Amino acid sequence: MRNGQSEAQTHIQEQIEQLRLGTVDFINEEELKKKIKKGKPLKVKFGADPTRPDLHIGHTVVLNKIRQFQDFGHDVDFLIGDFTAMIGDPTGKNETRPPLSPEEIDKNAKTYAAQIFKVLNPEKTRIVYNSHWFAKLTPADFIRLSAQYTVARMLERDDFTKRYQNHTPIAIHEFLYPLCQGYDSVFLKSDVELGGTDQKFNLLVGRELQKAYGQGEQQCVITVPILEGIDGVNKMSKSLDNYIAVVDSPKEMFGKTMRISDQLMLSWLELLTDITPAALSQLKLDLQSGRQHPRAVKVDLAKFLIRRFHSAEAAKAAEEEFNRIFVDKGLPDEIPEFTLSQPAEPISICHLLHQTNMTASTSEARRLIQGRAVEKDHVKIEDPNLKLALKSGEEFLLKAGKRKFVRVKVK
Amino acid sequence: MRNGQSEAQTHIQEQIEQLRLGTVDFINEEELKKKIKKGKPLKVKFGADPTRPDLHIGHTVVLNKIRQFQDFGHDVDFLIGDFTAMIGDPTGKNETRPPLSPEEIDKNAKTYAAQIFKVLNPEKTRIVYNSHWFAKLTPADFIRLSAQYTVARMLERDDFTKRYQNHTPIAIHEFLYPLCQGYDSVFLKSDVELGGTDQKFNLLVGRELQKAYGQGEQQCVITVPILEGIDGVNKMSKSLDNYIAVVDSPKEMFGKTMRISDQLMLSWLELLTDITPAALSQLKLDLQSGRQHPRAVKVDLAKFLIRRFHSAEAAKAAEEEFNRIFVDKGLPDEIPEFTLSQPAEPISICHLLHQTNMTASTSEARRLIQGRAVEKDHVKIEDPNLKLALKSGEEFLLKAGKRKFVRVKVK
Repeated sequence: MRNGQSEAQTHIQEQIEQLRLGTVDFINEEELKKKIKKGKPLKVKFGADPTRPDLHIGHTVVLNKIRQFQDFGHDVDFLIGDFTAMIGDPTGKNETRPPLSPEEIDKNAKTYAAQIFKVLNPEKTRIVYNSHWFAKLTPADFIRLSAQYTVARMLERDDFTKRYQNHTPIAIHEFLYPLCQGYDSVFLKSDVELGGTDQKFNLLVGRELQKAYGQGEQQCVITVPILEGIDGVNKMSKSLDNYIAVVDSPKEMFGKTMRISDQLMLSWLELLTDITPAALSQLKLDLQSGRQHPRAVKVDLAKFLIRRFHSAEAAKAAEEEFNRIFVDKGLPDEIPEFTLSQPAEPISICHLLHQTNMTASTSEARRLIQGRAVEKDHVKIEDPNLKLALKSGEEFLLKAGKRKFVRVKVK
Repeated sequence: MRNGQSEAQTHIQEQIEQLRLGTVDFINEEELKKKIKKGKPLKVKFGADPTRPDLHIGHTVVLNKIRQFQDFGHDVDFLIGDFTAMIGDPTGKNETRPPLSPEEIDKNAKTYAAQIFKVLNPEKTRIVYNSHWFAKLTPADFIRLSAQYTVARMLERDDFTKRYQNHTPIAIHEFLYPLCQGYDSVFLKSDVELGGTDQKFNLLVGRELQKAYGQGEQQCVITVPILEGIDGVNKMSKSLDNYIAVVDSPKEMFGKTMRISDQLMLSWLELLTDITPAALSQLKLDLQSGRQHPRAVKVDLAKFLIRRFHSAEAAKAAEEEFNRIFVDKGLPDEIPEFTLSQPAEPISICHLLHQTNMTASTSEARRLIQGRAVEKDHVKIEDPNLKLALKSGEEFLLKAGKRKFVRVKVK
């Protein structure tokens, strides 16, 4: 009996360790342990804005953590914040936030579902819309809600502090949005809420509102970091073009993942996969001792991502194709990129080789071609007078001599 | 024709001068003139909190100004702010502001009406309740409303500025109340709103919200000063006991008014009566030259107040009684007051005369009584051993010798 209890304790501790891996805020362990100990599935909340359903894998860090909750048997409320989205920005100042119609929201929610269920387990996920309860709130309820928080504390939120200090207007309804988000947790009686680090303040509002509304237990608040993009420098973002989209092809996913740094590889493993804390520690030791090669780890990581966002078959096929194109042909893992604007007229191949620093001159380029030592996308180039009509968006690989490669991108 | 226009112009200018008399803020003359010129009755708004219906004449300064609007043919929306009163203070921190039930609000509104119609013309007054329109607002409407104002501007309100600087909590719903008050003006399409100087900020919110909601014209904002109490020093208030209640008896009104200073008399004339600017200027000249005696002006003022809050007959009767008791008996206008706590046992008359500084000693008091030179409420006291059993709340006049008077009040 005591032994059984002890085993359960160990299991709970392992669960906690796994859930804490890769998180930033974890408020707090004792409460979460207490909730898990009760033995009932927890209600895990994640709120999403229905206006931007086009996800890259940076957005899935939080989904990955939520998936771990599901794997431990817990339930998820995936909340579509359609109530505020239907209002938009009522000041009319923010043109990127026009009100959405119920039809648009419905459409976005479906696109969302298609993408999140690459990560989440649909059988343990309930999709809820907060318009459902906000439509029933009276103005008096709303005033009571807004009475639960002070102006000073709201102004402590980082972005509000900065805007207030810089005299950038904050409209009063912007103070109501965090309260609405918090009220969602009151209504859902959430046990845990997850979000990015930028959401910490809002998640804590939910925790406090649950208390103000007399709920005996408050939600635990867990935040995850922003994922770094494939450049390993900036956060992953569309505008920096350093992302892997959820809808990227297996080939793109494989290629991009193979090109990330060894350091970033460890961070991605922690934030995007279901690696256990113990396995991660062991892997670090093995990499240090040389028992594991980073290249093999990246292959595993790439295959994990393709399995997740496509299928096991696609993962296998992508690996085979990658081997066929790169490994079997002796391509290095990292190939420099060269981006050029689309030339108005066809460009001579010798000129291009010189421009991309593959050769010291156009005459060296000519000699190499005549020596059959230049390839474009693994096809030998034989005519030194060849002119290429480059199209915008085109990408290809140039090889000169035995070891020189460049990936050319046309803007 | 031109003459007729010119006469109308003169009349409008006179109306403006009368309405501006005794005001603090008058925002603004040009707009008000334009509104009046259209020849339609204006919609004049005054909002009242249904929690405190016990008025003194200080509260009627604004009603007096509104009455002038009515006398010029304009209509009044007397707004009972029952919506917020039904909510009370949702933080539960302000115990003086518990939520009111609809029954209490209805009762308070009736008490209010009984008092305000001493000043306002009921035929030109519509009583409206803002719960009527707030009950129909949705949470989305509420968010749109709160989007019309910024946090920084709300924090410019004097009391908010002070509380924010002193780290005294401001709950967010407190930012919603001025917006609600302003929305009342949007709904009512008010042309003018009046209030005390402390309401200036809130009244301006109404003006700005009308603009934000696309109303072509905004309300004019007029504020009136706080009335000084009968001591001529502090603002009139119950707690300072320097007030005339709307329900005071004609005798009390007359007596209290006769005791105010000459300076205060002019201020009260301006703020509480329908004196014209021209008549007030003339009166000031006449007082300076001695053609008018302040005493006579105070009698007129007292009679005006009694006519307003009671009746013409009561005014006449109060004057006659005052003359009978005071003037005919050679009482001075101003008699010092002496307040004492109720003695546990009956107090000797000689002791009382000494205690109230009417005599230098109890033996002087005895001698004066024996000389038939002491009166209580105009009745000679003959027995120097008389003991008075004073009751709490009792008031009477003592006279010793020919010119010494004191008004004794028992606490």
